[in-house]
Amino acid sequence: MHLTEIRVAGFGGQGVILSAMVIGKAASIFTEGFATLTQSFGPEARGSACSAQVIVSDQPVLYPYVARPDILIVMSQEAFTRFAPEVKSGGLLLFEEDLVRFTGVPEGIRVFGVPATRLAEELGKRMVLNIVMVGFFAAIAGLLTREALRDAVADSVPPAFKDLNLRAFDKGYDYGIQHREACHSSGNAGLVGTPELAG
Amino acid sequence: MHLTEIRVAGFGGQGVILSAMVIGKAASIFTEGFATLTQSFGPEARGSACSAQVIVSDQPVLYPYVARPDILIVMSQEAFTRFAPEVKSGGLLLFEEDLVRFTGVPEGIRVFGVPATRLAEELGKRMVLNIVMVGFFAAIAGLLTREALRDAVADSVPPAFKDLNLRAFDKGYDYGIQHREACHSSGNAGLVGTPELAG
Repeated sequence: MHLTEIRVAGFGGQGVILSAMVIGKAASIFTEGFATLTQSFGPEARGSACSAQVIVSDQPVLYPYVARPDILIVMSQEAFTRFAPEVKSGGLLLFEEDLVRFTGVPEGIRVFGVPATRLAEELGKRMVLNIVMVGFFAAIAGLLTREALRDAVADSVPPAFKDLNLRAFDKGYDYGIQHREACHSSGNAGLVGTPELAG
Repeated sequence: MHLTEIRVAGFGGQGVILSAMVIGKAASIFTEGFATLTQSFGPEARGSACSAQVIVSDQPVLYPYVARPDILIVMSQEAFTRFAPEVKSGGLLLFEEDLVRFTGVPEGIRVFGVPATRLAEELGKRMVLNIVMVGFFAAIAGLLTREALRDAVADSVPPAFKDLNLRAFDKGYDYGIQHREACHSSGNAGLVGTPELAG
C-alpha cells in the first residue's frame, strides 16, 4: 500500500467523517498499515460543508496534510466544485451522482459516479449513503481489500445499525463491480479521458 | 488566539477524540477562529492507546501536524510517559491525577492535575471524565472562553446526555478555578518549576 492521500467531502449530516474513519481503520487496524484522519473546522464548518482528509500508508504518516488528493470522494455539488480541481493527475474521483452534476475535471482523472442516495433509500435508510460510497470505493479504488473495509464498517457503527450498514456497503460494492466491468468493456472507464467531458 | 498546538491522549473508550473535537469546535464554530483535528491510526490504534491533535488559530491552519504541543492533556499513564517529554518549554500539561502518577516533566512546563474520574463519578457517570477534563482545560489554559467551550460541549454530545455533560464541564471548570487560585496563592502553580519534581 503506497502512501495514498484521500479526501472525503460533502455536507454536514451525510456521515463524511465516518466514511473517512472507516477507510483509516481499514488501512491500519484491519490491514497492517498506518493512517491519519484530519478534519478542519473553520468557515466551512460554520456552514454546511464537511470535509475530511485520510492518508493511508504502509509506513507511519509523518505529514498528514492532504494538499492534492490521489482519491476524492464527493457527496455534494459544493464539494465537487471546490475539490475536483485539486485531484492529482492519474487520480480518481468518486461522486454521488444524484447529488452532483458532473461538470468536468482536469484531464487524466478517472471518474466514477454512483447513485448512493438511491441505493441507500432501497434499504429504507437514506442515512447510509456514506457507507454505500465506501463500498463503491472498495470496488473501484482497489486500494484496500473488501474484507478490511467491511470489517472497519462493522467496527465503526453502533451494533444496532451494523447489519444495515453492511448491506449498504455490499450494495455500493456490487454496484462498483458492475460499473467497473461495464466501463472496462466499453473502453470508457467512467468518464476517463473523454476530452469532451473533461474541463 | 495565537496558533496553539494541543494533544489529547489517553486510552480507547475515554472519549479522547470527543474532547479534542470540543476544543476544535470551540475555537472555530463558537469563536471566530480555525482548527484542525488529526487522529492517527496504526499500531497505537490497534492497542488501547488513543491520541488526537488539535491546532487552533485565528488564521487557517495550513500544517496540521503537532510535533511538540503547547498544551498536553493526558488521561492515562502510557500517554503521560509517551507525550510529556514532547511538551514545548513554556507549555502546559494537564493530567488526570487518579490515572496518572506524575513522574516529572522537563523544566519550564506548567503542570496541573485534576481528579476527573472522581468528579465524573460524583455525577454518577464515569464516562464523562473527558468533559471534566475539558472544563478543567477551560479554567487553566485560558485559551478559549468558558462560553465557547461550553457551547461546543452542548453541540457535540447526544441531546439526552447534554445536561450531564454540561454539569461535568462545570465541575471540571470549578475545580480548575479553585486549583488555579490555590496555586497562585501558594506561589506554586501546580507543579510549576519545582526542580525536585521536574525531571
